[in-house]
Amino acid sequence: MALTVEDIKAFAKECFSDSRGSHDWEHSRRVYNLCMHIGQVEGADMEILKIAAYLHDVGRFHQDKSKGTICHAEKGTEMATELLDKYPISPEQKANVLHCIRSHRFRGNHQPVTLEAKILFDADKLDSMGAIGIARAFQFAGEVGAKFHNPDVSPEATRPYTEEDTGYREFKLKLSKIKDRMLTAEGRRMAEERHAFMEKYFERFFQEYEGEK
Amino acid sequence: MALTVEDIKAFAKECFSDSRGSHDWEHSRRVYNLCMHIGQVEGADMEILKIAAYLHDVGRFHQDKSKGTICHAEKGTEMATELLDKYPISPEQKANVLHCIRSHRFRGNHQPVTLEAKILFDADKLDSMGAIGIARAFQFAGEVGAKFHNPDVSPEATRPYTEEDTGYREFKLKLSKIKDRMLTAEGRRMAEERHAFMEKYFERFFQEYEGEK
Repeated sequence: MALTVEDIKAFAKECFSDSRGSHDWEHSRRVYNLCMHIGQVEGADMEILKIAAYLHDVGRFHQDKSKGTICHAEKGTEMATELLDKYPISPEQKANVLHCIRSHRFRGNHQPVTLEAKILFDADKLDSMGAIGIARAFQFAGEVGAKFHNPDVSPEATRPYTEEDTGYREFKLKLSKIKDRMLTAEGRRMAEERHAFMEKYFERFFQEYEGEK
Repeated sequence: MALTVEDIKAFAKECFSDSRGSHDWEHSRRVYNLCMHIGQVEGADMEILKIAAYLHDVGRFHQDKSKGTICHAEKGTEMATELLDKYPISPEQKANVLHCIRSHRFRGNHQPVTLEAKILFDADKLDSMGAIGIARAFQFAGEVGAKFHNPDVSPEATRPYTEEDTGYREFKLKLSKIKDRMLTAEGRRMAEERHAFMEKYFERFFQEYEGEK
């Protein structure tokens, strides 16, 4: 029997049964929601986008287990290739879904080329920004046993994934640069807004730190 | 030789040499900054307030090590009693510092009575609110291995200190209620503002979650 989008969602969710924290199934859910919004504005093939959003991180478990030697985008593409044999879709559409999954990390030669791949890329990046991005940065700091704040050392001089790491370091060195990497107009517009929110948030963070607010 | 405020700060900082994360020495630094601000507005004895702010959590290490059987406010009062024998201060002022430390948790019979004790209490609570409070809530969730977000279960139905816990749960069940507990006028004003910021933050968090922003 042919698979439905709901079956694909269930398969994807199952791939996260051992995950939790800042990069769990909830991340895929939010990326899906963002893809639905951007896809409508940009006029994308929504079916492709739905499947690609649910499946984009199914290989993450293998990457984590292998301590990074397996690339989750490559592994996820492999897993999706097999799964989509049972999904009623044209060869061109299937190729597009696989292209979306493979290129969402944008490493090496795998650049997003189709509209759907660009949208998935933008949605995935947007989820590291804004109120959600701030929350994820601090939760991640907690997960790796990092300090809460490290005002005596400049963020540039500290090492990632250590106790010197902090949510603010993550913002300063990574999150604050994402807005310039967007590939669609709606993605860019949302990224500007999420960026502005993060700027305002940390401005307030430092005023509160000083006891001024 | 008599101790100085700087000596007391150094002693207090040393008590946190094994701590990190959402409740480390940085928390005492922020509480100190808040006490300086509120103390000036409320017309407090600033010397008392400085010493009490630095010392208020020095017993925390013992509470953590004893898994909560030792109360850090009681233990901290004991530690400060001995230390302040070497600090040039009147018996009334010393009694006030000890009262500040003992009552900052506001458990049982130890209610803050002096202005300085009320200010320390407010400063300690304020540090769980606003942009800082949000960051601490998510960092703490990361530290206990909690989920990032748990939208399928109502916060009231989840258990604290488990993977069901989340930053939003912490806000909904605890942080959102702090503003009604303030003991000074300036503390209350600041708490209202920090509360409003948290409300706005989570409003945006949920809009972003849905992919709307």
